[in-house]
Amino acid sequence: MNPELSTLNLSVGIDLGGTNIKAALVDTQSAKTLVTLSKPTRDGEFEGAMPRFALTVREIVHEFEAQAGGKLAVGLSAPGLANPDGRCIEWMPGRMHGLEKFDWSAFLERDCRVLNDAHAALLGEVWAGAAQNARDAFMLTLGTGVGGAIWSGGRLLQGKIGRAGHLGHLSVDSNAPCDDFNTPGSLEDAIGNQTIAQRGEGRYPTTHALLDAYAAGDEHAKKVWLTSVRHLAAAIASLINVLDPEVVILGGGIAVGAKDRLFVPLQQMLDTFEWRPGGNQARIVPAELGDSAGCLGSVFNLLNR
Amino acid sequence: MNPELSTLNLSVGIDLGGTNIKAALVDTQSAKTLVTLSKPTRDGEFEGAMPRFALTVREIVHEFEAQAGGKLAVGLSAPGLANPDGRCIEWMPGRMHGLEKFDWSAFLERDCRVLNDAHAALLGEVWAGAAQNARDAFMLTLGTGVGGAIWSGGRLLQGKIGRAGHLGHLSVDSNAPCDDFNTPGSLEDAIGNQTIAQRGEGRYPTTHALLDAYAAGDEHAKKVWLTSVRHLAAAIASLINVLDPEVVILGGGIAVGAKDRLFVPLQQMLDTFEWRPGGNQARIVPAELGDSAGCLGSVFNLLNR
Repeated sequence: MNPELSTLNLSVGIDLGGTNIKAALVDTQSAKTLVTLSKPTRDGEFEGAMPRFALTVREIVHEFEAQAGGKLAVGLSAPGLANPDGRCIEWMPGRMHGLEKFDWSAFLERDCRVLNDAHAALLGEVWAGAAQNARDAFMLTLGTGVGGAIWSGGRLLQGKIGRAGHLGHLSVDSNAPCDDFNTPGSLEDAIGNQTIAQRGEGRYPTTHALLDAYAAGDEHAKKVWLTSVRHLAAAIASLINVLDPEVVILGGGIAVGAKDRLFVPLQQMLDTFEWRPGGNQARIVPAELGDSAGCLGSVFNLLNR
Repeated sequence: MNPELSTLNLSVGIDLGGTNIKAALVDTQSAKTLVTLSKPTRDGEFEGAMPRFALTVREIVHEFEAQAGGKLAVGLSAPGLANPDGRCIEWMPGRMHGLEKFDWSAFLERDCRVLNDAHAALLGEVWAGAAQNARDAFMLTLGTGVGGAIWSGGRLLQGKIGRAGHLGHLSVDSNAPCDDFNTPGSLEDAIGNQTIAQRGEGRYPTTHALLDAYAAGDEHAKKVWLTSVRHLAAAIASLINVLDPEVVILGGGIAVGAKDRLFVPLQQMLDTFEWRPGGNQARIVPAELGDSAGCLGSVFNLLNR
């Protein structure tokens, strides 16, 4: 037991990902992470009927409890659609074997609240990051695919089956082919790293390579990148009309890597596309919390239920 | 005074439009309209500093109060962006002269709650129409332009400045020219009646004429109409991913006039475009309340504040 800790204001946040389980012991009064750790998920491994990742989560919780000297509340986020009652991930086909309908409260013997991972990342930013004090915000995570989440009127939008906020599956070119979720010409296909080969005509192995060529003045790279940014700008302008946020947060590997190469042309295009009644303009900002957003958001979800 | 009425369960709903002021005396227990009336708006006319439409609204309220035999609560909807506190329309440039920042509570000497007209139409459908008992729904109104509104988690989405739900200003073809709200290739331009001349290459004076030609088997009309429906289907599939509704309501003159000529091809396209995790499918339904939705929604907004 660590004598500097007290269970009074402590909770555990778990971000259960496909590769790693990130965990944090969080001070709920300051919204600060006190201790963090990361362990491999080992998706597909089981001990008896129990997924290995569930046992690892329990070991982590017990380890934090030993440090804190008492029982702790646990918030957990994971891929897939979370049941609106927050007891489990209801729908996650194809990977994270054993996660679907796994009852975390029963397994951890406490009231554990479960949340979709993109929803958790936004809640983290609302609690302690780029959207602090905002009542209306949305987040786009630009990586292999494009994820998202919505905070509206001081509340996380979940929708009927926990699907709300799948902002990557917005059609920005409805004449184009459908993506993995049946959306024609989706934002995800327009800027997610998984389509870089087609978009870049095979010249760039990754979006980071595309960005480097763009920064070096390559005309082809400029055309490919700014086409993607134009689609993103159209999507953000659309979502501003739909959701009317104060702040739009951009996270994920592409946003982190691109920095001004994303934010400068994007803001210029929004100067054309964004409707600004009465001069109102949404702030476009980078995510602040990086890897710790999911753990913090999972804890905020406990406090905010 | 009408002896069959009691002020106990009665409220007044006002739908202040550009052409007419519709008003209803509403039974708040049954969500039923007891008496309705309509008077011309006479936008642009003033008596002293007072817009004529404000005086007409007050006359209507007094007329209903004479019938009911006592003071009544008033809910009002109008075009423009309503202030989040519900006291006035904050932003409505160019028409409805005198409406911007007009303080209805002060003028009517009671706590009058003001709402955007598209928001009110959806609230009416939630209270007494096509979205009864739904916690998650959105509505698209297909007319001269395309309007919309969102009900999420049992709450109207308003956003930071009351703009949320401007679903006509979603980009469905981000390479196309910008609409009146700066949105490139907007849903509004793709199906709203105001672009019928361009879309139909001048062959159809109205969308109703286009629909008649389509029903008669005209190949050109078929291509023009189904292109518009395809854009609408892409937009609805996108908004299902963003908002995760149980029900999607289609209203407005085009939806009312088109009936199956809209709903049948739209549902076929959604069979391709809609993401249906675990078999979950949103219901696509016509609006039920027509002209009375705004008055009913204005009263529901009083009850639901």
